[in-house]
Amino acid sequence: MTTPPCPTHSDAAPAPAPAAPVGIVGLGLIGGSLGLDLLRQGVPVRALVHRAETAERARQRGLAQVVSTDPAVLADCALVVLALPLDRLLEPDADLLAALPRQAVVTDVGSVKQPVLRCWQPLHPRFVASHPMAGTAQAGVEAGQMDLFRGRPWVATPAPDTDPEALAAVRVLAEAVGGRWLCCDAEEHDQAVALISHLPVLVSAALLQTADRQSSPSPQLAALVRTLASSGFADTTRVGGGNPALGSLMARCNRSAVQAALAAYRAQLQELEALLEQGAWPALEAELEHCRQLRPEFL
Amino acid sequence: MTTPPCPTHSDAAPAPAPAAPVGIVGLGLIGGSLGLDLLRQGVPVRALVHRAETAERARQRGLAQVVSTDPAVLADCALVVLALPLDRLLEPDADLLAALPRQAVVTDVGSVKQPVLRCWQPLHPRFVASHPMAGTAQAGVEAGQMDLFRGRPWVATPAPDTDPEALAAVRVLAEAVGGRWLCCDAEEHDQAVALISHLPVLVSAALLQTADRQSSPSPQLAALVRTLASSGFADTTRVGGGNPALGSLMARCNRSAVQAALAAYRAQLQELEALLEQGAWPALEAELEHCRQLRPEFL
Repeated sequence: MTTPPCPTHSDAAPAPAPAAPVGIVGLGLIGGSLGLDLLRQGVPVRALVHRAETAERARQRGLAQVVSTDPAVLADCALVVLALPLDRLLEPDADLLAALPRQAVVTDVGSVKQPVLRCWQPLHPRFVASHPMAGTAQAGVEAGQMDLFRGRPWVATPAPDTDPEALAAVRVLAEAVGGRWLCCDAEEHDQAVALISHLPVLVSAALLQTADRQSSPSPQLAALVRTLASSGFADTTRVGGGNPALGSLMARCNRSAVQAALAAYRAQLQELEALLEQGAWPALEAELEHCRQLRPEFL
Repeated sequence: MTTPPCPTHSDAAPAPAPAAPVGIVGLGLIGGSLGLDLLRQGVPVRALVHRAETAERARQRGLAQVVSTDPAVLADCALVVLALPLDRLLEPDADLLAALPRQAVVTDVGSVKQPVLRCWQPLHPRFVASHPMAGTAQAGVEAGQMDLFRGRPWVATPAPDTDPEALAAVRVLAEAVGGRWLCCDAEEHDQAVALISHLPVLVSAALLQTADRQSSPSPQLAALVRTLASSGFADTTRVGGGNPALGSLMARCNRSAVQAALAAYRAQLQELEALLEQGAWPALEAELEHCRQLRPEFL
């Protein structure tokens, strides 16, 4: 896949916020946060949600000027952000599709990009695949918060036939809420997030399970691991103890990249295991020294 | 191994600090921090270090009342803390052994306990194996800091023939600096730290290596993983990017427990990998839900 020309980073001053109404479909963490940020800047926001209870709570929280369960609420929007979970994004409702204005720019916020492009490119002429890389442990209509996107990467993965004007409009939106704009190939995006986001969830989950299962035959040992676990264990297991629906969905939607990452990880761990079996302590120390040098590159 | 009766937790008021001189062998993070805490409480502290430069710097920092490179400095100590790295602890200098008063209580701070007990039980009649579970990323004579042990577990692993009075004296020391006193079997201690401390280092290191190696064939991907890595990756890789000498030493001194933990971890990861291969998404989500429930037990 060839990516069209696209500046990889924005050092320019913040772009003006979009003046025409912005539609947001879904008011969870991402949609709700986006609504709060845009409203603060005076941008009209129309939101579509699935359930009447969510709509009511979203209105109380002031996440959008208009919140409705009727897709017609999107009628006059120039830009629509599909802030839906990946599974619902990849099997969109027919009435949502029918309600999306054909001239509007449509973007998403999904954390896997190839299946989203495959699904949405044929569905809408001005679709732009994008992924604001921001999050907290929260989810749902209570989760949205101001400034969630500030200083965080907002990645777009344009295809060769992505409308350049539509891409530019999503960039204006991303930068209006403080995102660091970045373009890359969808396949590389999915490989990257497999390595730095989806693989860590599984690696971390397996560590929690191992500490639990290996200690459970002895009640004293089970109590001891829980008493002695400190900040190192807490940090290493944080993402493994996160949202299970999200973790499973990422693995499902990014399956081949996650499988490749897992296979590579298994081989890497076996290399370390072999050093232990051989008692190759200087070699083990050299590997760990390399890790110490590597880590700052990722911070 | 049967552990003698020993209260597992202290809820009592802090014990009075020891009044007789305490000797500290080694003034790195643990030894230096202990010196600072004891001096603040008016306890006389005599320290033995290896190099004259270290002694000079330790005097400047005020880590002990007397700092010397001559083992005779330990002559009038009632309690001596061997705050040495594991490798030096397990191959003690002959002149250190000769200088340890036979009537003094001797304890260590090593993070693996079975080899320490095997080595030191025959060497000194009043030896108590212990492990204050406190740390920072720092090491060396500059690393010591006040209150390092406050609220942290201080684990002792008495053997059947450990002198009960010596054990009680180490408890007084541990509680004087705010440690949470805990006794357990040495083998269980080593299994526990393999699971919650040593295994995480290798799991975390392999993740760093995988993200590096899998991305390195493509310069764009290599740059992308580094740009997109966020707090989740940073947390999961923190301990893998830590002190390489310490990581290697722990694996070496706790080899069989770490190997058992690694084998169990590999099997656990393969279970998750199998769920991905089968596309068993509800089962994967159930495993991750179990992890979400497990993690608070370790915090």
